[in-house]
Amino acid sequence: MDNIWNNYPELKQELTNVVDLMKKNVKCKDKKIENSIIELIESGGKLLRPAFVLIGAKFGDNDIEKSIPTAAVIEMLHMATLVHDDVIDDSKLRRGKETIQSKYGKDYAVYIGDYLFCVCFKILATNSSLQSIKVDSRAMSKICMGEVNQLNSRFSMKLSVKDYLSRISGKTAELFSISLYLGAAECGADTKLAKELGNIGHNLGMAFQIIDDILDYEGSDKSIKKSAANDLKQGIYTLPLIYAFKNNKDVFKDVLGKEYYSEEEVKEIINLVRENKGIEFAKELAEKYMKKCFKGIDKLPDNEYKYVLKEIAEWLLKRTY
Amino acid sequence: MDNIWNNYPELKQELTNVVDLMKKNVKCKDKKIENSIIELIESGGKLLRPAFVLIGAKFGDNDIEKSIPTAAVIEMLHMATLVHDDVIDDSKLRRGKETIQSKYGKDYAVYIGDYLFCVCFKILATNSSLQSIKVDSRAMSKICMGEVNQLNSRFSMKLSVKDYLSRISGKTAELFSISLYLGAAECGADTKLAKELGNIGHNLGMAFQIIDDILDYEGSDKSIKKSAANDLKQGIYTLPLIYAFKNNKDVFKDVLGKEYYSEEEVKEIINLVRENKGIEFAKELAEKYMKKCFKGIDKLPDNEYKYVLKEIAEWLLKRTY
Repeated sequence: MDNIWNNYPELKQELTNVVDLMKKNVKCKDKKIENSIIELIESGGKLLRPAFVLIGAKFGDNDIEKSIPTAAVIEMLHMATLVHDDVIDDSKLRRGKETIQSKYGKDYAVYIGDYLFCVCFKILATNSSLQSIKVDSRAMSKICMGEVNQLNSRFSMKLSVKDYLSRISGKTAELFSISLYLGAAECGADTKLAKELGNIGHNLGMAFQIIDDILDYEGSDKSIKKSAANDLKQGIYTLPLIYAFKNNKDVFKDVLGKEYYSEEEVKEIINLVRENKGIEFAKELAEKYMKKCFKGIDKLPDNEYKYVLKEIAEWLLKRTY
Repeated sequence: MDNIWNNYPELKQELTNVVDLMKKNVKCKDKKIENSIIELIESGGKLLRPAFVLIGAKFGDNDIEKSIPTAAVIEMLHMATLVHDDVIDDSKLRRGKETIQSKYGKDYAVYIGDYLFCVCFKILATNSSLQSIKVDSRAMSKICMGEVNQLNSRFSMKLSVKDYLSRISGKTAELFSISLYLGAAECGADTKLAKELGNIGHNLGMAFQIIDDILDYEGSDKSIKKSAANDLKQGIYTLPLIYAFKNNKDVFKDVLGKEYYSEEEVKEIINLVRENKGIEFAKELAEKYMKKCFKGIDKLPDNEYKYVLKEIAEWLLKRTY
């Protein structure tokens, strides 16, 4: 488990319970399937989303235990989308470990993702309410639509900021948002407060994803360039590039829209993005979402976890600056 | 819609409502996604599973309207698995039309399948009960496990009848079974009756799939051979082959276990299956399931739809004989 949780022993214990519940629910006759999922659970994700569920729950009146299954489900929905994303991206590694699709084949990974979806809804049906299932399935639809939208806009030279924002809203912000929302709503917080927490999650997710995309263009580290190159090769153009392109279309005309980029070309595009203020503009937008996020947190009712949420948001969002 | 339903105007009208509800629920901002799913809905599946839900519902006391959403969900879960199966099998055609994966790409098809799963659970959460969601998600887990099991046993020379039966139990019988079960249970039939209907569905599904697999080895038609060849190439060994292999292992030793079969080799294997009583033995087992199915139907309480179910089962199971 990520070291960050050592600072919050209560939360850490609850996250351990979440992980145990996940492991318990993926138990099945086929040990190969069970083990491949348990490997994934243990491969050291940050467990941000379940932590948000638990933090949201601290703003309600009911027993926090009620939110453990929801936290497990949200992490497993996230895992299911990662498994399918790796199939699409043909990724060899995830969290430094070999992906399911690389280890067991794409076919296997498609069904493992499906199986994870099923387990999620089984847990929900056993422990949750119809209302929560509705929220979860709507959020998952939105995530799928975001992914399809990303596929459809690959290599598109339209490069619209609006499209990008709607894409990352589905891809990242949606699960952040419903984590905080459902945690609160299911533990008896009033609807207005739950929705405010949902908004905080949305803004945090948007800022987080934009910063992630900025990092691809900012570092000098090889792995960072590799990640930018990977997106470029798949025709996924992120915010820094979109802004730089808007600022100076002419210089990009000849280098973009290819289905293969050499090392040299990737370097050239990264430099063009930097020279044409792509990073600066993207940072400005990230700051806007960050401000909204922290403003939302400040307005929350006084509660120890208001400050925990603030610290975690700071940790997540200040990775670059 | 399949002509069979012309014989049952009430059922036909209800199935039309099911199709309308499916279309209504896949409406989304992205018209490309919406249209690709509507094409699939309109591509002329038999609508067996939703029909079973409706027939099951006729054995309850409540308004049949209650079962329309469940019928829509079961058909869409089936569609989701077909979309993902086509990704795995790399199929070009489904119901005589180009598959989603062939038309829009594998990546797209993975997410469309996921999106369909989400829509299913959204419909259930809006119209159904936690109990039904539990049954659905358990059944879907079983189906996924069946598919993974099929993947894992590809090209395996173990060829066990038990494994085959457990595979088709997940692949086909499970959805047949829960269709009849849920239709009845949700419309207020008592639990014992609902379970009996579920058993009938299971036996019908088992017989149906065995017959389907027999047909691959029985006809002289080119397309039938193609289907057997397709299974063989994917290392999927079905019941007639398993029985023939059990009867005379030596003759199969040199021809099986390959990852590619020429036209000549497919013909040879089909002949070996025929010569070594693979079809005869498989038919015997199909008959056993058929008998159980009809015995179950005969024991049902008197109701117009008892006879409808019998006619449909006869239509489905007597395709060969």
